Amino acid sequence: MNKGKIVLTGDRPTGPLHLGHYVGSLENRLLLQENNQQYVMIADVQALTDNFNNPTKVRDSVFEVACDYLAVGIDPNKTTIFIQSAIPSIAELTIFYLNLVTVNRLKRNPTLKSEIQQKGFNDNLPAGFFVYPVSQAADITFVKAELVPVGQDQLPMIEQTNEIVRSFNRIYNTQVLVEVKALVPKFARLPGIDGKAKMSKSLGNAIFLSDSADIVAKKVKSMYTDPEHIHVSDPGKVEGNTVFAYLDVFDKNSEEVEMLKEHYKKGGLGDMVLKKRLTDILNNFLEPIRIRRKEFEQNPDYVLSILKEGSEKAQSIGEKTLKEVKTAMKIDYY
Amino acid sequence: MNKGKIVLTGDRPTGPLHLGHYVGSLENRLLLQENNQQYVMIADVQALTDNFNNPTKVRDSVFEVACDYLAVGIDPNKTTIFIQSAIPSIAELTIFYLNLVTVNRLKRNPTLKSEIQQKGFNDNLPAGFFVYPVSQAADITFVKAELVPVGQDQLPMIEQTNEIVRSFNRIYNTQVLVEVKALVPKFARLPGIDGKAKMSKSLGNAIFLSDSADIVAKKVKSMYTDPEHIHVSDPGKVEGNTVFAYLDVFDKNSEEVEMLKEHYKKGGLGDMVLKKRLTDILNNFLEPIRIRRKEFEQNPDYVLSILKEGSEKAQSIGEKTLKEVKTAMKIDYY
Repeated sequence: MNKGKIVLTGDRPTGPLHLGHYVGSLENRLLLQENNQQYVMIADVQALTDNFNNPTKVRDSVFEVACDYLAVGIDPNKTTIFIQSAIPSIAELTIFYLNLVTVNRLKRNPTLKSEIQQKGFNDNLPAGFFVYPVSQAADITFVKAELVPVGQDQLPMIEQTNEIVRSFNRIYNTQVLVEVKALVPKFARLPGIDGKAKMSKSLGNAIFLSDSADIVAKKVKSMYTDPEHIHVSDPGKVEGNTVFAYLDVFDKNSEEVEMLKEHYKKGGLGDMVLKKRLTDILNNFLEPIRIRRKEFEQNPDYVLSILKEGSEKAQSIGEKTLKEVKTAMKIDYY
Repeated sequence: MNKGKIVLTGDRPTGPLHLGHYVGSLENRLLLQENNQQYVMIADVQALTDNFNNPTKVRDSVFEVACDYLAVGIDPNKTTIFIQSAIPSIAELTIFYLNLVTVNRLKRNPTLKSEIQQKGFNDNLPAGFFVYPVSQAADITFVKAELVPVGQDQLPMIEQTNEIVRSFNRIYNTQVLVEVKALVPKFARLPGIDGKAKMSKSLGNAIFLSDSADIVAKKVKSMYTDPEHIHVSDPGKVEGNTVFAYLDVFDKNSEEVEMLKEHYKKGGLGDMVLKKRLTDILNNFLEPIRIRRKEFEQNPDYVLSILKEGSEKAQSIGEKTLKEVKTAMKIDYY
């Protein structure tokens, strides 16, 4: 039981997961689960902060995301997968932490600031979205996570959490809460099929783990390459060429990829050849995931039982933390 | 069980209760408990929003307030007395409701605005204090309260709650949440012993239900009367005279009080005579309360068992409401 570090990670359930998630986090979780106590949270409460008027999307995505997790090999015997809304302790901790953070401090949070701008809330910023960094501190601390894998852009969130941890421990003269370290992955982000820096469902440029072989072929066919590479004989650019970006990640034969790059730069190598190669590689990679995913999809009761069991385990840890927190705050009455 | 209306009321535990509480709310609760389902909440979580760095005060006051309740005759067989922090459902509902209120709407809440000013937070407004109107909506709706006794100044809080209720029911296409009505008491506020409009612990002008007979005598002796009524023979003012304000409320012989007023206005009636009369009346009123209070104070286990039982009952109702809320939000997964 007491192996490695306590790791917390998760996803907002707003759609099925895609290759960007695989490269950016799922792959890392497969490694982490071997030597750590890993908790993976399906953050439905957080998803609702800006999807509160579309709960069906959130609900359906919880199941989709769970199937994706299981299909790629996140193993419920090694990783505790749980649903955020099933953990009352997170809500209770959030309420207590809200007293330790000023409104002005939240306004200065760089990640929150840029997200508020991106979402275009203007005068209609929901209070729930505004305070979600505090809720995130509760997500992290309820299991006393020591490591949280995050992107560079999320570092201010980790700092916000640690500020709350320090304030709490100082004010209530305790060591109950634990500071957390960010684990920033080394690998680059997978671009969208349109060549944009970020693959995302809402940008419509994602290849989902659940896409059929035909759809993968179609999406690869439409991929952004080098717009000036018109004839096969033309020299082509490798940098910013999405197909090569994907081959760099998914093609195991890196020597051959280097040779293809040279050939492409000189001219005489067509996009279609490369796309055919990438399609085969991606479908070979995705096929076993698709097969496993179908099995899970067809056994919703089994998937839900895993989520229920994980959530119960997480909540029992949350109750323990909450008890310690309440004792430190002296509001343990009986 | 199904008698009258569901009533929610309560106090922030930041000190023992005083005569102002008795006149302003406790007396009313004694009436309400006879024909309604009354819930009285000891709002420790709310008290912590601006006392988070003094939890011992909050903790001790929870017990003090409970003793006050029981001593004045709030009957745990008729009224459910519970502790806010013991109800996780309130925290969970708060988190969901936060999505339905914008930051700008909270900023415009007149009650919140004036309280923020009074407390002098300036740049250090805790997020928990800022969002407490949302938490209050959760306090009210988790038992589906139909009536909330409040002062005139708290009406914007009730409106805020009803806005949340309407938004929730509209967005999630449900009738789960119930709009609440404010019950604004007719009687005037009891002034402090210094003649200031409001009796309050922090103003140091309160007579506590737990004050000894000697202390009551001393406090009445120091009461603000008419500063221009220097000699017994001088004519005195009745308006703004705190002793008469108290006699109006506590002296059962209103005919005699009217005669005393006439005498005082003409001159020839000394403050000391009136203060002696008031002291006797207050001590006669407080003596049985003091005796009962002492009994409860000396039986903390009994008092705590009442709080525990009440909190468990309230939480079981909260769990039912939360289940309905989650079903309406479609986040009831298994």
